[in-house]
Amino acid sequence: MIVSMRLHATKEEVDAVRRRIEEFGYKVHSIEGEERVVIGAVGIGDVTQCLESLEAMPGVEKAVRISAPYKFVSREFRPAKTEIRVRGVTFGGEEFIVMAGPCSVEGERQILEAAEIVAREGAKFLRGGAFKPRTSPYDFQGLALEGLKLLDKARQATGLGIITEVMSDGDVEMVAEYADILQIGARNMQNFALLKALGKCRRPVLLKRGMSSTIKELLMSAEYIVAHGNPQVMLCERGIRTFETATRNTCDLAAIAALDELTHLPLILDPSHATGKRSLVPAVARAGVAIGADGLLVEVHPAPEKAMSDGAQSLDPKQFAAMMRDLQPYIELWKAQRARRLAAQAM
Amino acid sequence: MIVSMRLHATKEEVDAVRRRIEEFGYKVHSIEGEERVVIGAVGIGDVTQCLESLEAMPGVEKAVRISAPYKFVSREFRPAKTEIRVRGVTFGGEEFIVMAGPCSVEGERQILEAAEIVAREGAKFLRGGAFKPRTSPYDFQGLALEGLKLLDKARQATGLGIITEVMSDGDVEMVAEYADILQIGARNMQNFALLKALGKCRRPVLLKRGMSSTIKELLMSAEYIVAHGNPQVMLCERGIRTFETATRNTCDLAAIAALDELTHLPLILDPSHATGKRSLVPAVARAGVAIGADGLLVEVHPAPEKAMSDGAQSLDPKQFAAMMRDLQPYIELWKAQRARRLAAQAM
Amino acid sequence: MIVSMRLHATKEEVDAVRRRIEEFGYKVHSIEGEERVVIGAVGIGDVTQCLESLEAMPGVEKAVRISAPYKFVSREFRPAKTEIRVRGVTFGGEEFIVMAGPCSVEGERQILEAAEIVAREGAKFLRGGAFKPRTSPYDFQGLALEGLKLLDKARQATGLGIITEVMSDGDVEMVAEYADILQIGARNMQNFALLKALGKCRRPVLLKRGMSSTIKELLMSAEYIVAHGNPQVMLCERGIRTFETATRNTCDLAAIAALDELTHLPLILDPSHATGKRSLVPAVARAGVAIGADGLLVEVHPAPEKAMSDGAQSLDPKQFAAMMRDLQPYIELWKAQRARRLAAQAM
Amino acid sequence: MIVSMRLHATKEEVDAVRRRIEEFGYKVHSIEGEERVVIGAVGIGDVTQCLESLEAMPGVEKAVRISAPYKFVSREFRPAKTEIRVRGVTFGGEEFIVMAGPCSVEGERQILEAAEIVAREGAKFLRGGAFKPRTSPYDFQGLALEGLKLLDKARQATGLGIITEVMSDGDVEMVAEYADILQIGARNMQNFALLKALGKCRRPVLLKRGMSSTIKELLMSAEYIVAHGNPQVMLCERGIRTFETATRNTCDLAAIAALDELTHLPLILDPSHATGKRSLVPAVARAGVAIGADGLLVEVHPAPEKAMSDGAQSLDPKQFAAMMRDLQPYIELWKAQRARRLAAQAM
Repeated sequence: MIVSMRLHATKEEVDAVRRRIEEFGYKVHSIEGEERVVIGAVGIGDVTQCLESLEAMPGVEKAVRISAPYKFVSREFRPAKTEIRVRGVTFGGEEFIVMAGPCSVEGERQILEAAEIVAREGAKFLRGGAFKPRTSPYDFQGLALEGLKLLDKARQATGLGIITEVMSDGDVEMVAEYADILQIGARNMQNFALLKALGKCRRPVLLKRGMSSTIKELLMSAEYIVAHGNPQVMLCERGIRTFETATRNTCDLAAIAALDELTHLPLILDPSHATGKRSLVPAVARAGVAIGADGLLVEVHPAPEKAMSDGAQSLDPKQFAAMMRDLQPYIELWKAQRARRLAAQAM
Repeated sequence: MIVSMRLHATKEEVDAVRRRIEEFGYKVHSIEGEERVVIGAVGIGDVTQCLESLEAMPGVEKAVRISAPYKFVSREFRPAKTEIRVRGVTFGGEEFIVMAGPCSVEGERQILEAAEIVAREGAKFLRGGAFKPRTSPYDFQGLALEGLKLLDKARQATGLGIITEVMSDGDVEMVAEYADILQIGARNMQNFALLKALGKCRRPVLLKRGMSSTIKELLMSAEYIVAHGNPQVMLCERGIRTFETATRNTCDLAAIAALDELTHLPLILDPSHATGKRSLVPAVARAGVAIGADGLLVEVHPAPEKAMSDGAQSLDPKQFAAMMRDLQPYIELWKAQRARRLAAQAM
Repeated sequence: MIVSMRLHATKEEVDAVRRRIEEFGYKVHSIEGEERVVIGAVGIGDVTQCLESLEAMPGVEKAVRISAPYKFVSREFRPAKTEIRVRGVTFGGEEFIVMAGPCSVEGERQILEAAEIVAREGAKFLRGGAFKPRTSPYDFQGLALEGLKLLDKARQATGLGIITEVMSDGDVEMVAEYADILQIGARNMQNFALLKALGKCRRPVLLKRGMSSTIKELLMSAEYIVAHGNPQVMLCERGIRTFETATRNTCDLAAIAALDELTHLPLILDPSHATGKRSLVPAVARAGVAIGADGLLVEVHPAPEKAMSDGAQSLDPKQFAAMMRDLQPYIELWKAQRARRLAAQAM
Repeated sequence: MIVSMRLHATKEEVDAVRRRIEEFGYKVHSIEGEERVVIGAVGIGDVTQCLESLEAMPGVEKAVRISAPYKFVSREFRPAKTEIRVRGVTFGGEEFIVMAGPCSVEGERQILEAAEIVAREGAKFLRGGAFKPRTSPYDFQGLALEGLKLLDKARQATGLGIITEVMSDGDVEMVAEYADILQIGARNMQNFALLKALGKCRRPVLLKRGMSSTIKELLMSAEYIVAHGNPQVMLCERGIRTFETATRNTCDLAAIAALDELTHLPLILDPSHATGKRSLVPAVARAGVAIGADGLLVEVHPAPEKAMSDGAQSLDPKQFAAMMRDLQPYIELWKAQRARRLAAQAM
């Protein structure tokens, strides 16, 4: 922590700040400039509360945290990438993994058809919502338990793993019974009751970045899950909210490169929500492979124009097949790069 | 709904769109311009799904909804302002109501002291969190049930009503036992499981706008609560997230005037979170009265520099007293304006 | 400046940073924590370049500036508010000043009519664009010199002062010949060639905040003008660009309170561009008076539905008259507050 | 244009709107629904003014434009990609083009060294600012004419083309004498006086997207240049301003795919400004190739830690060489894809 005093702060104000820092268990180091006094606090303590307390004191201009507020999820804590093994597939390792399927589970025929399509083209997981977070109370809210059972059927029919959303801490146990990976939607990234419940769960979690969440806040939310006991967390970039309306969200692809420096957790890209427009999905997916994501989460529907949600951003079977073909040479380059990186680490 | 076809859309594409609209139960009206065909859909149906379905069809350029997606909360549905009566006080009526208190309930002495301070200066409700949504898992998370009991004590000691946050659908019943008004935080504005649970609750709800939520989404979330059975909802502007960092959030004061045109629900301003800086709170509160909010939610702490959260934006007892004095003439103007408006409505 | 080194930065890296800081003319103070080294730089030098240089060095995690990057426009430099006297009126003093008129000068009859309307209701300045920044090359671009001459006629007819926009450094001299105050639009806030030209001009300047400019950048742009020789600068909040689309821009009213702490320059609010919706203008104007702005810049048109630009946000004559009446008691409160403040300063 | 009337709009209000639309030269088509009247306007007229005029009329809820407001730059106007030929190189064709160099021209030795480095690694153009837009008046402002002459020297020494920024309409002629491509910075994207001057210039223009400009506004600014006579325009994505601070800007890579659907103009990515962090530049550049940009604009400095501006985001010679090697296989994929596309077009 660094505390910068105002110009002309009195000696009493400076002393009070020094004492407060010590009360919080830190050591004080001051720098007395010609113009102003700056105080450094070093050690271990309750940083957030201390910062807020200092900012509330007379004579203080700014109190800044220097070290990152997350720990378990940081590269400093764990330099090698976390590998998450689910149903024989490893996230964060040498495979580039595609998860695909419809926005919602709408019925048995639809989800089985979707599962076959995505399995045929090389996806390893089937996505599909049984619980749907919808802006309007009048929109389709999902089939709930019935939907989970249909996903299970699709798994048995195709061998695909299942990733599906859980929206409330009360539902974690039930969803975990059916799903291989629990998905947390953007709107729930800071649903802390839910994050704590996920910490006690044994399933891997895919945590989507909130619409207006910073990279740091995303990491803090992951830290909640890990600190409460579950280290199997993947992060997902799905676009953030900005002033631009030509796309549904603004895909912050560089966040994947930035996150890769800060955390060891596997990183997934959702090009469907990131753009909201089917015609843009393949190009953005390509960029996601090139930038180094560990996998993709893509919306695919047997008949997008009949989808009960997100039709405009879902690929149809042909488009998905074309995209998977198109991605192939990029995935080859990805594998070569990953192998070089793992080799370098091993040395 | 209006569907604008692409230039050079084929007759087949136009006909398919017409048929799809009819399948959704709407009547079709087309406009055939020299350059392009525009199709109107009039009637009642599942708008969101229909729009998404149309946008996914070949030849379609844009599909736009015309009517608002919310109903019960709109001024069109109910022209007169909703009045919410709690503990002898009426929100949305002729009183300007101040709710104040610390960010968190920290202990018996702190909350009782806070309650006395805010009661003395004219606040009608005591705010104070027993469940705290904190970005970091390592920050103080609130006293939970113990905190609710302390709030109850403060109510008995001072006669103030209690407003406190609930963070999970599983906790609604318990919090409703102690609180007079349930507060929903910005991070939970689209926690739909929670919104549905609130719909079944008999307590008034103060719904805070999400950090990156539009006015329309705020109204949709309120619609969830009302449509599930609870019409006693107030909306709270508490600042939105933008690129500006000089203030903690950007206070969208004009949203209060804009909301007042769109909805009959009472409107509250939280100048503390909106600015994040104690020195700015009184000026923003003044502006909130002037723009026509129905009340304020303000953070006040007996000793802000010792607060366990939000110290930097909490007023100390002196500052709160000064603010309340300073607001008085503005509240007088507010009352005169409100009386004129109610008189005009009555005619 | 504070430089925080990475965990495990080598001694060589730390030493290189110390040397670099000294090369830039600063004194070095280091804090060696258990975990990391933090280095403070105190003195006077080229801060921006030094910061960038340090951030580019190996072993450096973050380099943060502590003191504000502007000087002449800061309250620290000049505690008392700047008063700008134009045509017998003083901005930043004891008067609350209204500037009003149409978006564009469209013709003689329109501008004379507008001038009479706004003068009658108490405005002191007539606004009206002769040079118009329009997003589309196909929209009306203004009458240029012809427009300036018409503004002059309106001034002679009514005694109002004239405020009008200048868009290019090449036009500053010509516009300054006709205008009493030069207005710089949001899109030109960082047109540095223009800012430098304004520094050499003798007319007061109203500088509008850029659509996505921070408060700090606004102050830096003002600093350009002042540092190049012209101290008569007023700042204008006119809404910033955010994700919200219910209003044309998001009116950052709290910025006025925040600016008032940071700078001594007079502060103006433009409620018309800030909202883009005529029905919201009076309420936002009221809030602007309450929060302590020094004046308003409002769009008024004799017949808004025939306006060649910004019709939707222009008040018609009746609405303007009603707003001015409605503002009166708030302006009275404003004057009392201002008088108390000036008295307090004088002591 | 589509005009949606309010519920309960009167017949008089509807008729007035119909008349107004006809006055603007459009044909009227109305749709009378059970709930509300919607009016379509078809034809050619002054859309912006007409829309604003309609929105200002009583009874009108919303007036929406359907067709795009730009023309010459649209794919509808010109389906095949524009090819811009400069110094033997073609933008928008079968070559992927790298432009690289320092942020500012700082002196003869620096710029010559930079030119040699980037030429050696395969760049075709040297970037370097002689006129620098700097937030602070106290930062280095560029060498102006002296800088242009040094760029010319570097061109003669290496054969590279020169791209450099022009900041004022008054300087266009002078800069055009020395530069092969004129660069317009983000802050000047809506400097309309400058855009008009560029329209009269014979040099190709690289137009950077404004920090908070939408894709549509970027296209409108390009339309200014083209409509005023210069069809040789390239667009450059360089990151937009959002709430995220982990990167200097948020790189809107999907905008490149979105623009490619809307316009025929060549599209360039600037990964340096888009991220502000040297370590992220290569990964983002890779993604830019993969998503289909026509070229890159990259900051490279012989010794970034001594750079007078933008040191933190500049690559050093080794890093640039590594990036160019790393990009090679992606550029090969790019060429194959481009060839397929051109072949498909030719059929």
